[in-house]
Amino acid sequence: MNFYVLTLFPQMLEDGMRVSVIGRALEKGLITLTAINIRDFARNKHGKVDDYPYGGGAGMVMQPGPVYDAYLHAVKLIEERRKEQNLKPLSKKPRVIYLTPQGSVFKQKMAQDFSYEEDLIFLCGHYEGIDERVLEMIVTDNISIGDYVLTGGEMPAMVLMDAISRLVPGVLNNDISAETESFTEDLLEYPQYTRPVVFMDKEVPEVLLSGHHGKVDRWRQEQSLKRTMERRPDLLEKKK
Amino acid sequence: MNFYVLTLFPQMLEDGMRVSVIGRALEKGLITLTAINIRDFARNKHGKVDDYPYGGGAGMVMQPGPVYDAYLHAVKLIEERRKEQNLKPLSKKPRVIYLTPQGSVFKQKMAQDFSYEEDLIFLCGHYEGIDERVLEMIVTDNISIGDYVLTGGEMPAMVLMDAISRLVPGVLNNDISAETESFTEDLLEYPQYTRPVVFMDKEVPEVLLSGHHGKVDRWRQEQSLKRTMERRPDLLEKKK
Repeated sequence: MNFYVLTLFPQMLEDGMRVSVIGRALEKGLITLTAINIRDFARNKHGKVDDYPYGGGAGMVMQPGPVYDAYLHAVKLIEERRKEQNLKPLSKKPRVIYLTPQGSVFKQKMAQDFSYEEDLIFLCGHYEGIDERVLEMIVTDNISIGDYVLTGGEMPAMVLMDAISRLVPGVLNNDISAETESFTEDLLEYPQYTRPVVFMDKEVPEVLLSGHHGKVDRWRQEQSLKRTMERRPDLLEKKK
Repeated sequence: MNFYVLTLFPQMLEDGMRVSVIGRALEKGLITLTAINIRDFARNKHGKVDDYPYGGGAGMVMQPGPVYDAYLHAVKLIEERRKEQNLKPLSKKPRVIYLTPQGSVFKQKMAQDFSYEEDLIFLCGHYEGIDERVLEMIVTDNISIGDYVLTGGEMPAMVLMDAISRLVPGVLNNDISAETESFTEDLLEYPQYTRPVVFMDKEVPEVLLSGHHGKVDRWRQEQSLKRTMERRPDLLEKKK
């Protein structure tokens, strides 16, 4: 899995992704991350890549030219890598994910879908967004990570790369863990307990110490259902 | 606004938040960020903070003790800061936000609500989660950033801090920008255009060049509505 990120803040991406599980996957070469600075493709001496919106309004809009050239650079890098690895040239355009509050809301199923791709390009906007014409030309997927507003697309890109990476074989140590977890069955996970048995007068539920697997499974299923009813009844309604 | 983050990866938080808009707000002192390493509160020589789940199952669970002690440390830091600033001691426990797929789904309204607090503590889990007992003792808000699974709570904490920070007065340069944007009116934003007028044979819509404010506003409203119908019809249904 090869990630290419078109951004005004390449350092943020590189720092944020080099730790923990994803950091280890990058070191092992299970995934690669290339941050491409859109500002390097500015069409003027000052590195300016934004301008006032036509029609008026607050804020600045990112210009189409630098974004398009950064995209062409990413495609070139992909083709070069494929050549080095003796793979055929791209038969279709790579998928370009634009992180925007105007996109479809990201769900676990989409992470699964994206995880089958070899190359993914992420486009991170800033300010009041990006000129619509270049978006029409290059973007294949408009994705929002939720109904809230952020200062830019970098964190959403990191969220998607994290969700996708952990589905790439070998990235998580235990494959079972990725399978039995939240949202694969539309029920929230049951509560977890570990040592010590007594923590500040609070005890671990007795059934978990019983060693009786059938009872443990039943208790956990009940807890999952109870928690889902309390916190996310909408997940149960969807199942009907 | 003072953020305290309980985490196993303090570096990730500090690196990720020190750029762009939020980075500038930190430099200006409009917000503060203190990352507290849960591992510093391990109750053994090896810095181990996790153990096997009672009742069996894959993965590891974070133990209650180190999380609780890291929380007490955050509260102590808050009290010290209040004393330095000649403020009264806390009259109630500070809000503790646990980032978990088992939480309520984060929305723009919650960002507004959180932005009125003086202090917020974020708790980031890893592995298969955190022992339930300590969560019951300290957590006031269980929050999920969306229906997908990530490797840890750090990115969600960054997402929340970003969404909340930009609502803190002075953080964004133009207050209008924070008000006229996506989700405050349950309609998606209209497309934006900037220079040049012609980009690779594509022209800016003529109405935006007309200088006729009434027509521009009407066009933008139509585009917002059209886009919302196409991409997020659920937002329109909620309004009814």
